[in-house]
Amino acid sequence: MTRYVYQFCDGNKDMKDLLGGKGANLSEMTKIGLPVPPGITITTEACKRFYEKGQKIDSDLEKEICENLEKLEEKMGKKLGDKENPLLLSVRSGAPISMPGMMDTILNLGLNDESVKGFSKAISNERTAYDSYRRLIQMFGDVVMKIPSEKFEEVLDDIKKSNGYKDDTELTIDDLKEVVDRYKTIFKENAGIDFPQDSRKQMMMAVEAVFSSWENDRAITYRNINGIPHTLGTAVNIQSMVFGNMGNDSATGVLFTRNPATGAKGLYGEFLVNAQGEDVVAGIRTPQFIDEMENVFPDKYREIEEVAQKLERHYKDMQDVEFTIEKGKLYMLQTRNGKRTGAAAVNIAVDMVEEGFIDKKTAVLRVEPLSVKQLLHPAFDEVELQKAKKITKGLAASPGAAYGKIYFTSEEVVAAAERGENAILVRTETSPEDIDGMSKAKGFLTARGGMTSHAAVVARQFGKSCISGCSELVVNEKAKKFSVKGVEYKEGDYISLDGNTGCIYEGKIQTKEAEITGNLNKLLTWADEFRRLEIWTNVDKAKDLERALEFGAEGIGLCRTEHMFFGEDRIKYVRRMILTDDIEEEMKVLDKLFEFQKKDFYNLFKHMDGRQVIIRLLDMPLHEFLPVRDKDIEALSKEMNKDFDELKHKVSSLKEFNPMLGHRGCRLGMTNPEIYRMQVRAIITAVTELEKELNITLRPQIMIPLVGIEEEIASIRKNVTEVADEIIERENSKLVYEVGTMIEIPRAALMADKIAKHADFFSFGTNDLTQMTFGFSRDDADAYLKSYVKQCVLEISPFESIDTEGVGKLMDIAVRLGRETNPKLHIGICGEHGGDPKSIQFCDKIGLDYVSCSPFLVPVARLAAAQAAIKNN
Amino acid sequence: MTRYVYQFCDGNKDMKDLLGGKGANLSEMTKIGLPVPPGITITTEACKRFYEKGQKIDSDLEKEICENLEKLEEKMGKKLGDKENPLLLSVRSGAPISMPGMMDTILNLGLNDESVKGFSKAISNERTAYDSYRRLIQMFGDVVMKIPSEKFEEVLDDIKKSNGYKDDTELTIDDLKEVVDRYKTIFKENAGIDFPQDSRKQMMMAVEAVFSSWENDRAITYRNINGIPHTLGTAVNIQSMVFGNMGNDSATGVLFTRNPATGAKGLYGEFLVNAQGEDVVAGIRTPQFIDEMENVFPDKYREIEEVAQKLERHYKDMQDVEFTIEKGKLYMLQTRNGKRTGAAAVNIAVDMVEEGFIDKKTAVLRVEPLSVKQLLHPAFDEVELQKAKKITKGLAASPGAAYGKIYFTSEEVVAAAERGENAILVRTETSPEDIDGMSKAKGFLTARGGMTSHAAVVARQFGKSCISGCSELVVNEKAKKFSVKGVEYKEGDYISLDGNTGCIYEGKIQTKEAEITGNLNKLLTWADEFRRLEIWTNVDKAKDLERALEFGAEGIGLCRTEHMFFGEDRIKYVRRMILTDDIEEEMKVLDKLFEFQKKDFYNLFKHMDGRQVIIRLLDMPLHEFLPVRDKDIEALSKEMNKDFDELKHKVSSLKEFNPMLGHRGCRLGMTNPEIYRMQVRAIITAVTELEKELNITLRPQIMIPLVGIEEEIASIRKNVTEVADEIIERENSKLVYEVGTMIEIPRAALMADKIAKHADFFSFGTNDLTQMTFGFSRDDADAYLKSYVKQCVLEISPFESIDTEGVGKLMDIAVRLGRETNPKLHIGICGEHGGDPKSIQFCDKIGLDYVSCSPFLVPVARLAAAQAAIKNN
Repeated sequence: MTRYVYQFCDGNKDMKDLLGGKGANLSEMTKIGLPVPPGITITTEACKRFYEKGQKIDSDLEKEICENLEKLEEKMGKKLGDKENPLLLSVRSGAPISMPGMMDTILNLGLNDESVKGFSKAISNERTAYDSYRRLIQMFGDVVMKIPSEKFEEVLDDIKKSNGYKDDTELTIDDLKEVVDRYKTIFKENAGIDFPQDSRKQMMMAVEAVFSSWENDRAITYRNINGIPHTLGTAVNIQSMVFGNMGNDSATGVLFTRNPATGAKGLYGEFLVNAQGEDVVAGIRTPQFIDEMENVFPDKYREIEEVAQKLERHYKDMQDVEFTIEKGKLYMLQTRNGKRTGAAAVNIAVDMVEEGFIDKKTAVLRVEPLSVKQLLHPAFDEVELQKAKKITKGLAASPGAAYGKIYFTSEEVVAAAERGENAILVRTETSPEDIDGMSKAKGFLTARGGMTSHAAVVARQFGKSCISGCSELVVNEKAKKFSVKGVEYKEGDYISLDGNTGCIYEGKIQTKEAEITGNLNKLLTWADEFRRLEIWTNVDKAKDLERALEFGAEGIGLCRTEHMFFGEDRIKYVRRMILTDDIEEEMKVLDKLFEFQKKDFYNLFKHMDGRQVIIRLLDMPLHEFLPVRDKDIEALSKEMNKDFDELKHKVSSLKEFNPMLGHRGCRLGMTNPEIYRMQVRAIITAVTELEKELNITLRPQIMIPLVGIEEEIASIRKNVTEVADEIIERENSKLVYEVGTMIEIPRAALMADKIAKHADFFSFGTNDLTQMTFGFSRDDADAYLKSYVKQCVLEISPFESIDTEGVGKLMDIAVRLGRETNPKLHIGICGEHGGDPKSIQFCDKIGLDYVSCSPFLVPVARLAAAQAAIKNN
Repeated sequence: MTRYVYQFCDGNKDMKDLLGGKGANLSEMTKIGLPVPPGITITTEACKRFYEKGQKIDSDLEKEICENLEKLEEKMGKKLGDKENPLLLSVRSGAPISMPGMMDTILNLGLNDESVKGFSKAISNERTAYDSYRRLIQMFGDVVMKIPSEKFEEVLDDIKKSNGYKDDTELTIDDLKEVVDRYKTIFKENAGIDFPQDSRKQMMMAVEAVFSSWENDRAITYRNINGIPHTLGTAVNIQSMVFGNMGNDSATGVLFTRNPATGAKGLYGEFLVNAQGEDVVAGIRTPQFIDEMENVFPDKYREIEEVAQKLERHYKDMQDVEFTIEKGKLYMLQTRNGKRTGAAAVNIAVDMVEEGFIDKKTAVLRVEPLSVKQLLHPAFDEVELQKAKKITKGLAASPGAAYGKIYFTSEEVVAAAERGENAILVRTETSPEDIDGMSKAKGFLTARGGMTSHAAVVARQFGKSCISGCSELVVNEKAKKFSVKGVEYKEGDYISLDGNTGCIYEGKIQTKEAEITGNLNKLLTWADEFRRLEIWTNVDKAKDLERALEFGAEGIGLCRTEHMFFGEDRIKYVRRMILTDDIEEEMKVLDKLFEFQKKDFYNLFKHMDGRQVIIRLLDMPLHEFLPVRDKDIEALSKEMNKDFDELKHKVSSLKEFNPMLGHRGCRLGMTNPEIYRMQVRAIITAVTELEKELNITLRPQIMIPLVGIEEEIASIRKNVTEVADEIIERENSKLVYEVGTMIEIPRAALMADKIAKHADFFSFGTNDLTQMTFGFSRDDADAYLKSYVKQCVLEISPFESIDTEGVGKLMDIAVRLGRETNPKLHIGICGEHGGDPKSIQFCDKIGLDYVSCSPFLVPVARLAAAQAAIKNN
């Protein structure tokens, strides 16, 4: 026969599915001899039965509950509803997976018109007794009978008002008795029945109410959002009450066994003398820090310390604990693994290994990889941030925190920077003309444009904070001001941008620099022992590269060549190259660009110290490089000695309806082969020169973007090797280089066997692959993606974490087909998902060789890759 | 031992791979006893050997050729290079697949300084002999020694000039002898050797030259374009020459055994008395029609008629024949299946079944499905078209031919139409404001916009001719004119648009209406006996529907609901619905739209006669409905009582970077569920009303566009059934309806098993599926797609014919996964590929149930489906 009810002393911590998290932990604490007020747990199976029987507790189940209640009464030497010394109970939900605050709780159960008197006598505190009774009626009315709490609050307010009280504590015992009477009236008026005086009936109704709360709207929504199965059901814990408000030898408190913010050893928490748990939460009285307890209750403090150590030793993790001291006796009411910051997680995990609690593998699994990010990025000072006034929110386009005075043109930013000011560039949207100001600004804020807008791309390349697509922003560049919901901000006003969250604040919030603690280093070194995936990085600037190498990157998985075209000294050549019809002029301009690019690649490889570097050939559509404003077109027309109208027509004819699906990447390489040939010439020339100069061996990898058709890569590869081999031969070099491709077009994944014939490596461009597989334009998708996540159509935006079902299926196909043709194929990912732990786990699972992510995410990826290897094994 | 040389009498028509097309047919004609001048064929294997030996004829092969030449000399009783009565030869290429004009030919081989005298005597015509000799030197010089023909032409011109001749025929025999001498001098000067007097050497050099011509640039390009393998090689045919220029009892001609334009029975062709084949081609003399031959050579005419019948009976197809009469004796020089128009193809196929030549299956396979289209669309009169001056070319966005006066605004078009004029609307691009003018114009021409631009979509819906994205067009709407490469066209000028080709012509070209002949009906009825696929149609107007049903459509596979929103009386409500923030206003406007939509669907179903209709819920992004011009926004702001700036901001905030991947289709259905609910209400209300009124049974199918996620269709289906079932219950109806989805997002194909749980049918939207699978924006892709096809990166644009390797793989996955979950799933295609024969063959192969195409393509699809079923079986 299925057992539906357990005494705390019968369960243990491994029975979470049956007893819920709270019940299992209460049992466990009981089992290891901690002072837990006795109680019983009605199982999740009972909950399922309750729903099967049409939301009813059938007589068999009721009988089992009552039998267990009797055992509890025996253990406590008190009876529920007893007139002399009644047993009081709390009734709480407790699901297998924590759903904090989602379901209902009832305290002080067992009080009625008679037992309240006995209780009063037993605790020698009439005030507490009647206060407990009126709380029971209110809670019971609310939870069981759905009577709005306000109705009860009104009565309390009324009595306080007519007596001129400000505070609940001023209520006399007679006042409280009046409250109880009037509460009962309200109960009857609204519930249609008297407040039940039969305590067993109270209990059964409370249990039913808790079971029912499993399916209240809040709980269903919570489960939808968090992906918790609706079939789990909740357990119900019925526990004998203890009271922290029985005088000055009583107290109640919460604590963490270590500091949850820093991980420092030693208790961290707070307590209140002569109070109940809810008083701590309600914030009416200010609690004391837990260390002050050493003075107030030295014995109890030591006892708690021992309990905390016992719990940590037992659970092998930092615990979040609730306790009550009733007349000098300590009771433990709850324990669970404590939530913590990234820094604390790292320190606790490492400390616990050193303390011998856990092994390295457990430590590596213990830290949420993304939480490591908090330790690395410049961020706002938390204290200042809490005081700051938020203006609005946009897209978090490039991470990092920044403050500065606002300016609306590139020129003004440059001038401000020369004056030594921190400047923030605010524009409707940025264009290549703004590049000077952008290089000098601390951050950018734009009203339009998405995660791949000009501002966002440049910001990430420059490593600057950027918030884009802030739709509430109305920018008036002429009047040098912007407004948000009618509030105006003028040139020179301070604002602060949080590129991690997309939030914009008024005024100046100080930032603090990233720190890497010794413990983080330790943890990551352990992670490296477990991971199978190599961790590469996406960079194209020497400064970022330095950081990435410091953070442990093993290669460059993506070096973009776009930004190299945007410099003030080059953009005009790029434009002339694009807009000329004269082949000679084109070749002349390409030679000029070759010189720039050669220098770029020379510097890059010089800093790479012999590591592998994947250079992606030009990916952007040509029109991104072109001038937008008539003024700039006119300047160019003079330089090129071309008719303005004709030039303008040509510029606008290059615009595209759907640039994401446009004439870019290898499509450009096919129609304008000279650009790629110039780039390859620059790469190979730079590398052969460097090899000679430094007498080292380099191994450049040339990556062709946006391939979808076998003939694209075949034809471009032919071009690449033609150019490269000629230089290598001429220079008498032994250089070995590789040619590979992005897999970012659905068709490329489907045709990977054919494409792999011409590729030495594959690198998944999951940003574009996601856009095309879903048909979502990332720049526009916010309008529905947010609501999709809210409505649980999607668990998470597929741009944040790889959609393993759909996009992942294509990746899996590509890996299998690719290796069928070319078993040596080196396969990785360089989309932004390369820094997302869930995505990394998937990449490990389908057998990629490496993930490549932005420098700041390298530590995250190291940890995530280790966890993936452990979990996938 | 491999045999490398065949006598014509040794081969047959099935040896095309070895003997080439021409050689095989010459052998076949010889075999069936037709008078073919004897000859030999050097095989394609010999060609391969030639290349293997480094482009040389080795001595073994030379020996085999000479042995066969000797056999030929024996047969002819003449010897090559003989002084008295020399054998003359033609040397011609002949590949297994016809490559007309791509490779080289040499005639009159065997003439030299001596044999020309013997030849002259033998034919008693010194003039012809020397003329033949000088032609040989020129041809040989050109083909074998690469001496530019101009150098020889200059000599001829010089002699003509110095004698004051206008025409070649004025040259005297002495003149011709001088020509020969001077030709030989030029030959030596340029080739570095004397013109070879040894006739066998001439022959061997000619054979080498023909083999070499297999790899000339023209031939390689031709093979690339037509997908002919470069490995096939060409055969060489060496044939004894016959002469049609041996006096008035000689002649030469070409003919088709039936009329290639109409298919009418009876010979169709032309001939020249006393002429050589090249004279017919050169056009110096005007040939006579073949039927006049009955008067000139009555016996020969009858002989030719008999040969033609014999050839048709033998080849079971209409033949394209070359012949020569030499001194009263008929020789057949070539036969092959004749090219023909669509009309001719249909008529010949049907006639040949009735004549007992072929069976129905062969007839069905004989007609190129797309050629049937020529029979159905209004087209320009061919005679007028040939005389017309082409202005430029744009995208063929909507088929049909139209002429009219040009106007630049909607208002002027309306006014012109009221005056009874044919009007063509010319704009940079059209917008919803132009709808009035568009409904009155005969066609639209736009400078911008692709195949899915507003103009193109409306044009196809209205069944009007449209040419869009004509980039050479510079439209000046203010000045009421446009220009192309500097040439201006003003308001009121006539132009003609060919929506089938994208060509724009000056002036007025008369159009002619479509005709359906009885033979076409017969052929299509036969096709219906063979096909497995159902043929449905894409329509949303009663007029198009009528045509589609007439053409044999079995259901409506796609009824778009977009255009129903564009009517002048409705668009303002649509706009208010989109732009209001007031939920009450929204519901009021939706009620208004409901009335319109109900009427639309009522009319549609009324004409459907109980057939199945798939109605697609709104697919377009909302911003497509919004006003663009300030004027229109202002009018709307007054109507809505809203601030202009605010409204303008809202309008522009709905713009998207990549509308193709934007907030449309079911994404709108998810974020704005009331629109779909309104549409469903309108459909179901209309249908239940009609069922009662007409006492018939209808079966509407509701199609959800752009699904990529299971939860999208699950959630919208729930909404649909909720609305529908409530009406059905209220109306006491027994209506059965279905809910299905488009498969047009790559992810939908990958997740088809999940999606099929909620779908009664799938319809492949291969336009969008192709865009996303390739990452090609159809509106922008022209810039590289054309060059991709030219460079053979793609065989054909994937928007014309399904890319079976990539997109097709997704379709195949979707069919298999979908039927795994739901074996009853009805699957079809409604993208434009539904009318493309190659795509239809693929759809048949992967097991679709139906294809749906535009009304004009229904006959094409019927025929293509039959061919597919036959070929796939």
